Amino acid sequence: PDWVPQVRDNVMQLEREFTFKNFKQAWAFSNQVAELAEAEFHHPSILLEWGKVTVTWWTHAINGLHKNDFICAAKTDALLK
Amino acid sequence: PDWVPQVRDNVMQLEREFTFKNFKQAWAFSNQVAELAEAEFHHPSILLEWGKVTVTWWTHAINGLHKNDFICAAKTDALLK
Repeated sequence: PDWVPQVRDNVMQLEREFTFKNFKQAWAFSNQVAELAEAEFHHPSILLEWGKVTVTWWTHAINGLHKNDFICAAKTDALLK
Repeated sequence: PDWVPQVRDNVMQLEREFTFKNFKQAWAFSNQVAELAEAEFHHPSILLEWGKVTVTWWTHAINGLHKNDFICAAKTDALLK
């Protein structure tokens, strides 16, 4: 599944689930996303579970989606390559 | 706020929000919780956001709460000391 627009508390967000074969791999990916967030000065929510990471991008300042969120979503995908 | 019981998809879970003054501190704490999870062979969901980490413990095998979840919740709190 690709990035999916979600409305949560009236805020449009861009969300994607990434699956992994164990916790350690999911954990490593969540750290890569956190590093990306710090590098971009833009912070998604990162939900780490066993074998799964859910990343959600949106722009707090506008309570919605900005072009930058789509760029960060693409950069998140690129971490896997 | 302390640990709060939550019912999600008919599963009783134990959840607590931890707040921090920036992303880096929240990120560091989420890694401590992930290390605890690996050490315990028991994996919560860990939601990392700017300045906030939400930890949710439950036991997949019984679709609910086991004594071990309360122990892991206490160990999570102890990480902050």
